[in-house]
Amino acid sequence: MSTAIELLSSHACFGGEQRFYRHASREIGLPMQFSVYLPPRALAGDAAPALLYLAGLTCTEETFMVKAGAQRLAAELGLALIAPDTSPRGAGVAGEADAWDFGEGAGFYLDATQAPWAAHWRMESWLLRELLPLVAATLPVDAVRLGIFGHSMGGHGALTLALRHPGRFRSLSAFAPICAPTRCPWGEKAFGGYLGADRAAWAAHDATALMHSQAAAPYPAGILIDQGLADKFLAEQLHPHLFEAACASVGQPLTLRRHAGYDHGYYFIQSFVDDHLRHHARQLAA
Amino acid sequence: MSTAIELLSSHACFGGEQRFYRHASREIGLPMQFSVYLPPRALAGDAAPALLYLAGLTCTEETFMVKAGAQRLAAELGLALIAPDTSPRGAGVAGEADAWDFGEGAGFYLDATQAPWAAHWRMESWLLRELLPLVAATLPVDAVRLGIFGHSMGGHGALTLALRHPGRFRSLSAFAPICAPTRCPWGEKAFGGYLGADRAAWAAHDATALMHSQAAAPYPAGILIDQGLADKFLAEQLHPHLFEAACASVGQPLTLRRHAGYDHGYYFIQSFVDDHLRHHARQLAA
Repeated sequence: MSTAIELLSSHACFGGEQRFYRHASREIGLPMQFSVYLPPRALAGDAAPALLYLAGLTCTEETFMVKAGAQRLAAELGLALIAPDTSPRGAGVAGEADAWDFGEGAGFYLDATQAPWAAHWRMESWLLRELLPLVAATLPVDAVRLGIFGHSMGGHGALTLALRHPGRFRSLSAFAPICAPTRCPWGEKAFGGYLGADRAAWAAHDATALMHSQAAAPYPAGILIDQGLADKFLAEQLHPHLFEAACASVGQPLTLRRHAGYDHGYYFIQSFVDDHLRHHARQLAA
Repeated sequence: MSTAIELLSSHACFGGEQRFYRHASREIGLPMQFSVYLPPRALAGDAAPALLYLAGLTCTEETFMVKAGAQRLAAELGLALIAPDTSPRGAGVAGEADAWDFGEGAGFYLDATQAPWAAHWRMESWLLRELLPLVAATLPVDAVRLGIFGHSMGGHGALTLALRHPGRFRSLSAFAPICAPTRCPWGEKAFGGYLGADRAAWAAHDATALMHSQAAAPYPAGILIDQGLADKFLAEQLHPHLFEAACASVGQPLTLRRHAGYDHGYYFIQSFVDDHLRHHARQLAA
């Protein structure tokens, strides 16, 4: 399969361009879609630092771009934004569309090891080995000054990919992330299906377990997490206190902001997205 | 029918609240939905100036709130935002859901006079006689300091309602409005269906005709319109140059900004929505 990328649409936005792309993914074995916001500086030929945003369950490559209101400040700060789809689509795997929290729209940003998912559900390899190099080679973004963030399942993705690939991302933040997937229903279902019944294999994809295993703080300039206290998933699925304790145990600076009244959706995300962009911009400029 | 309003959902957003409501509409004869953003000042008990936003074809009361990124600055400026649905829903009129540009999602912000539409398609009466009074009586918004704006079909709605109801709205703006519906396919289809074949009845709902008929500038502090030049509907449907000429003929100050590269969608709207909020805030404070 070719790695050429096909531009599906482009929209002027705050002096930059909001683009939607498709490419034939070698790692996934299917066409995959993603979106890129290029700030004005990138269009002018100045390779922009970039943030990879990973979305939550049921979302697509469009969700963040259309709902988060991030482009205004991204244009001003000169940051590119990259948002991939959340799973393979149309693989033809039995049951892939039966649940909203497993299969399509629920890739969990890992490589499945279990049949029938292992053939296509290779989100980690797609993002790290294929999509990011492809974007860096094709678009005016700086492959080195790269940050990662995400929401819910995508917050899990951001935390785990940042910890599993030391040095690849220079900055890290999350909105309402699934912090300990080995200890919540969403994670147990996904990991059981994608990684199998042996829980020994799960810890390598659990942000809290990964942080506990660090010898030193992997992000010494600090990690930012925002969490709404009216989030209906907080008590059962998210467990930020476990990640907070893990950070404390290894001396990892963490700003975990708990916001009274805020829920799990994009009205919450848009309220704090500017703080995340500034957090990344500071660390990527350093 | 009661005019009580039912809160469907509420989401904390930039220190304010994004709310979705339904009420049993007397004018429409059906339940109607709308959304309201209340800025922090309103939640603190200080009645906020409000902007009525009218959305375009196929949109709902959710579209602007989730896609325009307006709440950040509305919170800062202390503006409430009100966005109604774009038509009756579920009326059971034959053909109501057959087209995307007529019937459901395409109310054109007028009262239909023709069967079978006249019974329920009463958007102008709903907004002016029922919804705005209901919101002012129920929520912490200032019924006097009221502005109106909208997009495409909703830009037509904003311009025509502002001109048909002198003094009701203190400020006016639009994104890519249908400026001369009597002279474009969308308007001809809608007006023919809702108002009948006699074109004499149409001029009263055509912004350009209404402006030409003014004895003096109705908005002496100025009207703001933004229009993208890559908007695929510009040449055939929108005709801002006709409204521009009408404003010039009566001495109405108009800032019509034509933006190279921008299209008809919400990436365009979000790029300029802050300018619209500031335009209204200035005039509502005066």
